[in-house]
Amino acid sequence: MPPFGLLHRRAWASLFGQLLRPSGLVCIGEVHFHSQGQMSLQVSEAVLISQLKPHQEKSNFVIKTPKGTRDLSPQQMVVREKILDMVIDCFKRHGAKRLDTPAFELKEMLTEKYGEDSGLIYDLKDQGGELLSLRYDLTVPFARYLAMNKVKRMKRYQVGKVWRRESPTIVQGRYREFCQCDFDIAGQFDPMIPDAECLKIMCEVLSGLQLGDFLIKVNDRRILDGILAVCAVPQSKFHAICSSIDKLDKIPWKDVRHEMVAKKGLAPEVADRIGDYVQRHGGVSLVEEMFQDSRLSQNKQALEGLGDLRLLFEYLTLFGIAEKISFDLSLARGLDYYTGVIYEAVLLQTPAQAEECLNVGSVAAGGRYDGLVGVFDPKGHTVPCVGLSIGVERIFAILEERMKTAGLKIRTTETQVFVATPQKNFLHERLKLISELWDAGIKAELLYKNNPKLLTQLHYCEHMGIPLVVIIGEQELKEGVIKLRSVASREEVAIKRENLVAEIQKKLSES
Amino acid sequence: MPPFGLLHRRAWASLFGQLLRPSGLVCIGEVHFHSQGQMSLQVSEAVLISQLKPHQEKSNFVIKTPKGTRDLSPQQMVVREKILDMVIDCFKRHGAKRLDTPAFELKEMLTEKYGEDSGLIYDLKDQGGELLSLRYDLTVPFARYLAMNKVKRMKRYQVGKVWRRESPTIVQGRYREFCQCDFDIAGQFDPMIPDAECLKIMCEVLSGLQLGDFLIKVNDRRILDGILAVCAVPQSKFHAICSSIDKLDKIPWKDVRHEMVAKKGLAPEVADRIGDYVQRHGGVSLVEEMFQDSRLSQNKQALEGLGDLRLLFEYLTLFGIAEKISFDLSLARGLDYYTGVIYEAVLLQTPAQAEECLNVGSVAAGGRYDGLVGVFDPKGHTVPCVGLSIGVERIFAILEERMKTAGLKIRTTETQVFVATPQKNFLHERLKLISELWDAGIKAELLYKNNPKLLTQLHYCEHMGIPLVVIIGEQELKEGVIKLRSVASREEVAIKRENLVAEIQKKLSES
Repeated sequence: MPPFGLLHRRAWASLFGQLLRPSGLVCIGEVHFHSQGQMSLQVSEAVLISQLKPHQEKSNFVIKTPKGTRDLSPQQMVVREKILDMVIDCFKRHGAKRLDTPAFELKEMLTEKYGEDSGLIYDLKDQGGELLSLRYDLTVPFARYLAMNKVKRMKRYQVGKVWRRESPTIVQGRYREFCQCDFDIAGQFDPMIPDAECLKIMCEVLSGLQLGDFLIKVNDRRILDGILAVCAVPQSKFHAICSSIDKLDKIPWKDVRHEMVAKKGLAPEVADRIGDYVQRHGGVSLVEEMFQDSRLSQNKQALEGLGDLRLLFEYLTLFGIAEKISFDLSLARGLDYYTGVIYEAVLLQTPAQAEECLNVGSVAAGGRYDGLVGVFDPKGHTVPCVGLSIGVERIFAILEERMKTAGLKIRTTETQVFVATPQKNFLHERLKLISELWDAGIKAELLYKNNPKLLTQLHYCEHMGIPLVVIIGEQELKEGVIKLRSVASREEVAIKRENLVAEIQKKLSES
Repeated sequence: MPPFGLLHRRAWASLFGQLLRPSGLVCIGEVHFHSQGQMSLQVSEAVLISQLKPHQEKSNFVIKTPKGTRDLSPQQMVVREKILDMVIDCFKRHGAKRLDTPAFELKEMLTEKYGEDSGLIYDLKDQGGELLSLRYDLTVPFARYLAMNKVKRMKRYQVGKVWRRESPTIVQGRYREFCQCDFDIAGQFDPMIPDAECLKIMCEVLSGLQLGDFLIKVNDRRILDGILAVCAVPQSKFHAICSSIDKLDKIPWKDVRHEMVAKKGLAPEVADRIGDYVQRHGGVSLVEEMFQDSRLSQNKQALEGLGDLRLLFEYLTLFGIAEKISFDLSLARGLDYYTGVIYEAVLLQTPAQAEECLNVGSVAAGGRYDGLVGVFDPKGHTVPCVGLSIGVERIFAILEERMKTAGLKIRTTETQVFVATPQKNFLHERLKLISELWDAGIKAELLYKNNPKLLTQLHYCEHMGIPLVVIIGEQELKEGVIKLRSVASREEVAIKRENLVAEIQKKLSES
């Protein structure tokens, strides 16, 4: 039975907070109102309640991150950083400069850029001054930057968080706050050369991250518009019909057709004509076939799109990636600003692998948006742009799952040397010693205790994966030496105090 | 004459927008209402107006970033990244793990954590669901993380943006969006060892960035409270008097005293007693002197603070940084959550240097906050914490200014090889060639033109600082060779096509 009402989390907490206070737990979930006036609860989450200052009679609150957001633990940050390093390396390999823009923009900058999705934009509260919204992607801020600074040509990358008020289905790796890595080429150039480079970059990133086999679906907005026009779809319905077509990767054609006819009022024969086109996908031969299509070849827009795709495939072949690309007539892409070629990379399900339960959807996407900069420019001068965005969260979900399955232990620190002592009252010596190591650029730690046990110190090294231990005691101090111990082999060597840094650096470079 | 009214930017734009539309410019500034009913304008900014879609009669808007925020250009990003790399390297050298938290928190999480500054928090609009606010610092989210995950011990760093609705005085490097780099040690340890490490880290970062001479002011909240108590300041006035004391680094004592007496209603003799304390600063000897102070030595809290500072100076001496530290009885720090030692690093003005006009204030700061985690914990269990925050924007302002003065040209890309041709119709060969380079991990670019002129291509390399050019033409193709040209020396060598990647890698490793 579907829920009739979803009780607001905060209301929920205040309703049931008192009841559950003794345990410190409160349950979050859906309230179902049944037809007989009964009510049932479906608990989806149990969280801890805290009181800010008990004596002040503050209202209870739940300690959590906002809905659809999360903290990244040190383990997760290691995986995340590896992905970002890989992606940024690739962007730099293709000559891109880095840009940064604020987390929020003037609200007006984002208006009318995202079509139906505009309702998902986070607005800031009007606290006096300008009306602001959190950025929804990195593309619109980039176009705003180009127009504002009158930049006519730029190859840039940007890595940052964006925010969308979507219903979070967290199992699929969809969040309300997520990280995007964008690469874009702005400028007037000969056709399809930058576009081909964008697809090459997507291939390099996805291959580099070893995510398994993938496919990049390619289409062109002008071909899609041409199809709708030659199928006699009224102009006013283009948008609605496009969004139905875009669902073809998730639901079968008969359901899409039903939606078009029953919900969107399309004549059945028009829907069937569309179906003949949008169910097709293939390689460059399909482009040639479409050129020969008696109806489509009458449409100027579609012909332009097909001509560009033909050229694109030529370049993709030279790049050695044509077999990764599928011309897919159902690809529509939601965002309003695309004007030409569009693309989306999907991972191919390999049932043998553990991540089959993870339906991650597209992991990278992009396209050409030749009109967006002109919208911001006072005189309407535009700068043609093409770009791509890597969906870090989804890639992260796959790699994290894979690591869990493999049971890999991740080191979250890079400490190279631990400073230990077997003796009491040796804090001063340890502090002097570790200070020397830090000043020499060596990554070093000690325990923040006056008199730690040696065993505790050695256990810490094993637990944290620290490879070397420097041990100083009464005897060593007298002889002017230091013991250097390898944690893995448990071998110890005595070295002269003055050679300590050099010996450690030698050991570290050997391993 | 001070401004009586500050006209809202948007109102301003709509008032004067029509007037100035022909030029596309609008002026932003202050309107002064004089006592005779006159009005004068003080223009502080001139910006371009744009129209979203002229035919739609949309209201004009100004293309800009929100007040107090800015884009970072590729040149600026290079400087920014260098700073962050240095800081992160240092944090890792001290064994910290990286954490990330969402840009916004539940509004309740931030309430009552920042004292008088709480009004500067950015709230999100209530669009249904939870009430949210942008994070104000990285410390409160860290404490929330510890409590939520019941973490009792953690050495973590976090790098990210925070947002404060301050009146931006941009010349001083103060923004409404800015980047913070935080390092914190959470856990119950023997006293002052982690605190001393935090000060050591501040020294390492500031020395490493070569910002010139600096000083770290140290005080303890308990000493400050003790002073106010023994000077007979009423408890209710502690907060207000502290904020007056905190101004002593900007205005002379007589003005601070005037504020205390005239504005905050303190008896003149009480103010004078305070003045005897808070105008003092010095090294460890001042700690000993305060121990002997007949009044202060009666105060339990102050004695605890002094005892900790004595121990702290002992450790700082072992770390070799005691001469960088000044016990400064006027240091108060605004944030509510500090409970013990507090510190703030300031750059010492060196009049000989170009940046003397830049009053950057404190470049790093922090302290001990032993109660904050307990505020979030359902049972009030707390985790003692101490940490520091590096003020990246201010450091950035100094380094940027220095680079401008020195006239340094910054490379914004890392491209190693450019693929050029002297001939027409060689795009296919160039694309095949560059694809090979990319696949070998070499950073390479070409011009997105079918038939670029050789001179244009070589100029691009010089302009962008690309060191090597690979040239392919008819002749080379026939002979199975490639010309490899060094941009600096203009030397060219012919190498076999099959050795291309190896030869380039050799050349690159030599330079």
